[in-house]
Amino acid sequence: MSKELGITPLAENSADWYQDLILKGGLAETSSVRGCMVIKPHGYAIWERIQRALDDMFKDTGHENAYFPLFVPKSFLSKEAEHVDGFAKECAVVTHHRLMNDPEGTGVVVDPAAKLEEELVIRPTSETVIWNTYKNWIQSYRDLPILINQWANVVRWERRTRLFLRTSEFLWQEGHTAHATWDEAETECRTMLEVYRKFAEDWMAVPVLTGVKTESEKFAGADHTYCIEALVKDNRAIQAGTSHHLGQNFAKAFDVQFTSKEGKREFVYATSWGVSTRLIGTLVMAHSDDRGLVIPPRLAPVQVVLVPMGRDEATRERTYGFCDEAKERLRVNQAFGERIRVHVDKRDHLTPGFKYNDWELKGACIRVEVGPRDLDADAVVVVRRDVGEKVTVASLDLVNHIKNQLIAMQSDLLEAAKARRNENTRRVDTWDEFKDVFAGDGGAGFVVAHWDGTAETEALISEETRATIRLIPFAPLHPDDDKPGVCVRTGKPSERRVIFAKAY
Amino acid sequence: MSKELGITPLAENSADWYQDLILKGGLAETSSVRGCMVIKPHGYAIWERIQRALDDMFKDTGHENAYFPLFVPKSFLSKEAEHVDGFAKECAVVTHHRLMNDPEGTGVVVDPAAKLEEELVIRPTSETVIWNTYKNWIQSYRDLPILINQWANVVRWERRTRLFLRTSEFLWQEGHTAHATWDEAETECRTMLEVYRKFAEDWMAVPVLTGVKTESEKFAGADHTYCIEALVKDNRAIQAGTSHHLGQNFAKAFDVQFTSKEGKREFVYATSWGVSTRLIGTLVMAHSDDRGLVIPPRLAPVQVVLVPMGRDEATRERTYGFCDEAKERLRVNQAFGERIRVHVDKRDHLTPGFKYNDWELKGACIRVEVGPRDLDADAVVVVRRDVGEKVTVASLDLVNHIKNQLIAMQSDLLEAAKARRNENTRRVDTWDEFKDVFAGDGGAGFVVAHWDGTAETEALISEETRATIRLIPFAPLHPDDDKPGVCVRTGKPSERRVIFAKAY
Repeated sequence: MSKELGITPLAENSADWYQDLILKGGLAETSSVRGCMVIKPHGYAIWERIQRALDDMFKDTGHENAYFPLFVPKSFLSKEAEHVDGFAKECAVVTHHRLMNDPEGTGVVVDPAAKLEEELVIRPTSETVIWNTYKNWIQSYRDLPILINQWANVVRWERRTRLFLRTSEFLWQEGHTAHATWDEAETECRTMLEVYRKFAEDWMAVPVLTGVKTESEKFAGADHTYCIEALVKDNRAIQAGTSHHLGQNFAKAFDVQFTSKEGKREFVYATSWGVSTRLIGTLVMAHSDDRGLVIPPRLAPVQVVLVPMGRDEATRERTYGFCDEAKERLRVNQAFGERIRVHVDKRDHLTPGFKYNDWELKGACIRVEVGPRDLDADAVVVVRRDVGEKVTVASLDLVNHIKNQLIAMQSDLLEAAKARRNENTRRVDTWDEFKDVFAGDGGAGFVVAHWDGTAETEALISEETRATIRLIPFAPLHPDDDKPGVCVRTGKPSERRVIFAKAY
Repeated sequence: MSKELGITPLAENSADWYQDLILKGGLAETSSVRGCMVIKPHGYAIWERIQRALDDMFKDTGHENAYFPLFVPKSFLSKEAEHVDGFAKECAVVTHHRLMNDPEGTGVVVDPAAKLEEELVIRPTSETVIWNTYKNWIQSYRDLPILINQWANVVRWERRTRLFLRTSEFLWQEGHTAHATWDEAETECRTMLEVYRKFAEDWMAVPVLTGVKTESEKFAGADHTYCIEALVKDNRAIQAGTSHHLGQNFAKAFDVQFTSKEGKREFVYATSWGVSTRLIGTLVMAHSDDRGLVIPPRLAPVQVVLVPMGRDEATRERTYGFCDEAKERLRVNQAFGERIRVHVDKRDHLTPGFKYNDWELKGACIRVEVGPRDLDADAVVVVRRDVGEKVTVASLDLVNHIKNQLIAMQSDLLEAAKARRNENTRRVDTWDEFKDVFAGDGGAGFVVAHWDGTAETEALISEETRATIRLIPFAPLHPDDDKPGVCVRTGKPSERRVIFAKAY
């Protein structure tokens, strides 16, 4: 079936499956600029809903938005030693500020006279630009905390790209906060991770593990990095959001000090935290199937699609009329505190069957089929995208049925994703079994195993199996996970189990 | 008085006045990157409100949002002949994709091995990238119209910058639509100009003239350009928004054809339209005074500020309690269909007088002074930002009084701006008078004068007076303006009067 629709089955090739979902689902496409994508209206509508929900959560936790420059002077990147190693390498470098007509031909060429004194890098992240600014905003403890978020585009020159999951340009939000104490920054850092966890589970219906990254995997310039990690349908992990405690690293690099209540000069503590359009890739990979996108109702651009039969003018008059009226009845009702989002598909050159497939592909949550015989019986056929079963619903019950099904679908998707994750999380105690689990090309779920805590062993394991430590969980998945044991690779002592997976 | 607050009076120096308003009002500041600004939370909050209002209006007129790449391949710019002349000149050019450690010192340098095959320009506007994409989206008339908007940052390498009004990087929205016929594109173009006019007047309280740009002033690559033009307090004009009919120019440049209902292959018609963070500069210049920002209630981040007296603990207990309770009462009420935005200023190291000045600077619409003696009389003192008069209001009437005053302030600001504009719009018939009007350094309002219709005369007038033709209005400001006459500069025949001004 999925072959007919043009979607490669997940079981056959997960990379092609994903690419087909994104392209044929109308979310995004590659552009003529290497590594950059075009986010199409259907994909951007999901991003807008993500933005709106997160932005409300940021504001509820006391944050304001602001905007900082796209350009980072080259010298800024060098100020924080680890940061430059992490970010200065693959980036877009602006060297000139003018083009001129080609003196030897047609078209335009770079004007050599317009060379910049200092090269500018397109921000890969904004810590340096922002801390160079905060320097002027912070004199005393009264100026703290600063709780600012920015919605912006960033560029990291990636060699291998994949729509939404890894692109050279992507959209994101980056929070940058300044605090008087280490503890306050720590609280902020954990608060924002909790915002991300809650958003992933309540809105995306994606269960996530929360915890801390190893030293090797932490943000370049951070003291430590917290993250949320999801497991998606091909059994790979996706890092869906991170929250960094930056300690005083950037304050020291940019000399940002404040006078404390006690009159002492001290360096400021910092956090930064971000999620990106990668969330859309995560969402798609978490719920979709071989028939197309499955999008949880809270984020779906189209929650209900009404498909009227329209063989002839007389039929159309009845079914279109019913759909228009049902649309209005639905729109004045709410699900999740917002008006229900309804579309009537009146494209008259397409068959109902084509439309059904098309809306399954695009991930409309609920489809309502409206035919003349149904209307004779004062009923319509309703199909929920994730369940697929055809249910006959009396016209009078339609609004209530749909409201209930949207709510149910949202929680069912989360439960199903949790069940999948739990089924695909295993404890491994021997190196043979570990190697075996990760032997194939594809993902192998989460593996909960002991590790001796060294970067050397971490690197060795990754080299030998391509599995990486996704996080050291805040809370053990099982009470025994927190008990000491021996490292699965070296046999050396281990304090607790950590989470391994192959990751995007 | 304004000297004490640190704001240069408008009458003394309008450029300094404007700069002081932006900086001391906390809207934005210059960054360490040449020509780029940092939009601070108070300024960004205005932009968010502008975005939300316009976005709703775009969606109500059938548009969807999408996102296209930041980078424009150099060769794309050359495809439309006029466009390249207009935009390829001053721009940010990316030539490399990697930095490396400086082999001869510290820091990082551009890696010469990472030179791009084709240079990329940071988008100054996205017609080329978008039409290169639309090419793949459009085959038949069924694919039309495409009605897409993008919220994005753009870069134009400006020599002389001014916060919000002209910066190298700025934020904007750019609509890009594709149509089957010239007429349909024309309707779109005029519809969006009308959206801009309505937004400027209903939300910004800024009256605007609408009309068409002369050939010399139109968008590079357009068939014709419509615009809205405001007159601000220093009597200069500001082009606040433009809507371009691009004809088939970009479709031809990128070979975008469609099969019509009749089966013919035809080039697609295009429009583009945009407004930017320049609107914030316009807003500031339109209403503010020597005491600080005046922001119309619909866009003000803070509509009501409550300032409790707090000499001692006992006072604070009463006044803070009153303010917290009043805040809740206000927040559950609405003005303009949205919750009233209220702030209680509890900074305990500042005097009430300082706070009054501070909130006048920042443009809070209504200030409520809450002292113990007032509370004894069950009353508070209320001051509207634009009027300045202190009014004693019974506590019980506070919510109603504020709701009414917010509504009144919004319309009073528009009426005052209209009156100012009308007072500063004059008809001029002789070249001596024309030169005289524009002789000073500053703005001189709108001048309605005859022009012979030639680009030569237009250039001559601009050279000799620095006044430019802002627009040829859709409707005459006065019935006689549409009657023929003789050009104010050359004496040659003129079909109608046009609008001249010195502009930002």
